[in-house]
Amino acid sequence: MNVDGVHHRTVRLDGACVDLIDQPRLPHAFARVRTKTVLETADAIRTMVVRGAGAIGATGAAGVAQAAVLAGDSQVHAAMHEAARILAATRPTAQNLFYGIDRVLAAAEGLEGRQARDAAVAAAEAVADEDADSCRRIGEHGAALLKDGMRIATHCNAGWLAFVDWGSALAPIYRAHRDGVKLEVWVDETRPRGQGARLTAWELAQEGVPHRVIADGALASRMAAGEVDLLITGADRVAANGDVANKIGTYGAAVCAKHHGIPFYVALPTSTMAPGTPDGASIPIEQRDAEEVQYTWGTDDDGVFRRVRTTYSPVANPAFDVTPASLVTGFITQHGIFGADATGVAASLAR
Amino acid sequence: MNVDGVHHRTVRLDGACVDLIDQPRLPHAFARVRTKTVLETADAIRTMVVRGAGAIGATGAAGVAQAAVLAGDSQVHAAMHEAARILAATRPTAQNLFYGIDRVLAAAEGLEGRQARDAAVAAAEAVADEDADSCRRIGEHGAALLKDGMRIATHCNAGWLAFVDWGSALAPIYRAHRDGVKLEVWVDETRPRGQGARLTAWELAQEGVPHRVIADGALASRMAAGEVDLLITGADRVAANGDVANKIGTYGAAVCAKHHGIPFYVALPTSTMAPGTPDGASIPIEQRDAEEVQYTWGTDDDGVFRRVRTTYSPVANPAFDVTPASLVTGFITQHGIFGADATGVAASLAR
Repeated sequence: MNVDGVHHRTVRLDGACVDLIDQPRLPHAFARVRTKTVLETADAIRTMVVRGAGAIGATGAAGVAQAAVLAGDSQVHAAMHEAARILAATRPTAQNLFYGIDRVLAAAEGLEGRQARDAAVAAAEAVADEDADSCRRIGEHGAALLKDGMRIATHCNAGWLAFVDWGSALAPIYRAHRDGVKLEVWVDETRPRGQGARLTAWELAQEGVPHRVIADGALASRMAAGEVDLLITGADRVAANGDVANKIGTYGAAVCAKHHGIPFYVALPTSTMAPGTPDGASIPIEQRDAEEVQYTWGTDDDGVFRRVRTTYSPVANPAFDVTPASLVTGFITQHGIFGADATGVAASLAR
Repeated sequence: MNVDGVHHRTVRLDGACVDLIDQPRLPHAFARVRTKTVLETADAIRTMVVRGAGAIGATGAAGVAQAAVLAGDSQVHAAMHEAARILAATRPTAQNLFYGIDRVLAAAEGLEGRQARDAAVAAAEAVADEDADSCRRIGEHGAALLKDGMRIATHCNAGWLAFVDWGSALAPIYRAHRDGVKLEVWVDETRPRGQGARLTAWELAQEGVPHRVIADGALASRMAAGEVDLLITGADRVAANGDVANKIGTYGAAVCAKHHGIPFYVALPTSTMAPGTPDGASIPIEQRDAEEVQYTWGTDDDGVFRRVRTTYSPVANPAFDVTPASLVTGFITQHGIFGADATGVAASLAR
């Protein structure tokens, strides 16, 4: 998507560097950063310089290819497998991370030296291109659900910053908005990292989509007021039975949507589906640092980017929660809209 | 309750001054502030230097008495009514505010000069004393619900900082904890003002009650994990039919509690009940400044108290939501526990 009129992708392999958008600095500053080693790439994922299902996947893929580029001919496979091990340990819940890593490893298998390296780079680029293309198509399929005047709620950021381009949950909104459909979006802050307030709001503002930011606790009351027609989020992993792991807070929003009879769609490329994970209970949930809850980052009145502390108490900080498939109306994928159950997951993967 | 071993009440009328705890500075610094005029007192309520149902009520009462103390003999009634008008305009949802103001006005009615002034002061002190006593009794009644090993969730701050002493939702927890019952409390942050992270967590730490702070969006997942045995909050107004207005986010927590079969009790002195408000739809919901959502206040790494900005987008900031009585298990009042319906409201008020 465009930033001040210039097209950007979130992740780009550039020689031996991975070129990323520095997301924690948004919306205060838009800047790109380059990682020069696999350890730097892994750190960018771990510290959420890059975050979001597809963007993590493309970065994981790029990181493995980066290892191949940096390695001597005889070390290509050892370097890639070491990189895969390091990168896979960064974000345990993120299905696309494993998808991206495995795609690049598989592409180089059986090849040696320069051929292995070239195949790895081509595979990393293919992961990124396919992610962008899938998201564009998610936008087209999902836009069919959006009618003039609708008020749509979303949680966290499943926009283009979370993928390579377009996004998952926001792609239908961008598609419909560009087609002239009048929409308004409720953006909840998504504490502790504020991806809604910081990233989704910034994305929507860049694209000119009307939206309002609300505290996470305010979403249910907007539903009760009849001001939410549709809830749409992304996913970090979908199990074989259709259970959805997504940013902490998704589950509560889904329960409230069900209570109010509001449709809840999960938008995702099929690379987020994990047929090897039987159900939500089998999805490992990442526990993140207490500091994320104890502090909030932003710019002070002098424009200095810093953090402020709000509590000194102990914290629990699960990064994700699991929404059972029964609370999900459907999956919007690049292949169309599928039921949120084992049949839907299998059918979308078979396409 | 005690702060570093010294007993404090949140609100104290001291001559012509109202003496308050500077709550926005908590948990970083504990300090008392004094308002010297009714306008300063009203501003302290509006800007939430003092906040919480009972504390607002006691401050409203103290503010009207303050006007009487400051006025010349012939001006006592005019000054009190002018003060009542100013104070009543600060927080439209808060039932205790009107209760406190009206109690003081009524006490001085028919009296003149010094007698009116003395009656006003005595009434303001009675409002505070009764609030403290009611909360202590709420603690005793509510403690009967709390068993060893329970994990209790609360939202916002309905502790002693929100009242004159003891609190409503936290009073049973304090009572049980002092009686040796082992409890753990889930404290959600309660964005945008962070009363959970800042105030409830600080109160519980002062009292030595085990607790963990979570993002607002994390509460539902704790329920799904079977880690919440009871939800208990305060109230800013309870309508005649039992509908509850409380801090934004209460409604979503109540919906999730219902979904999981978790009991949800609302703890309140009967001064929070508004028999003249027929139902939740009749409760005016205060809309607060966008800046509360756009910024977060805290201390930076140098200990400087300041705000940081997280979004530049437009905001909706309803301060309260309404939970229908059907989602409430019961009301814990100073007179005992009552059903959450018109009968329960009427019965508790008849005591």
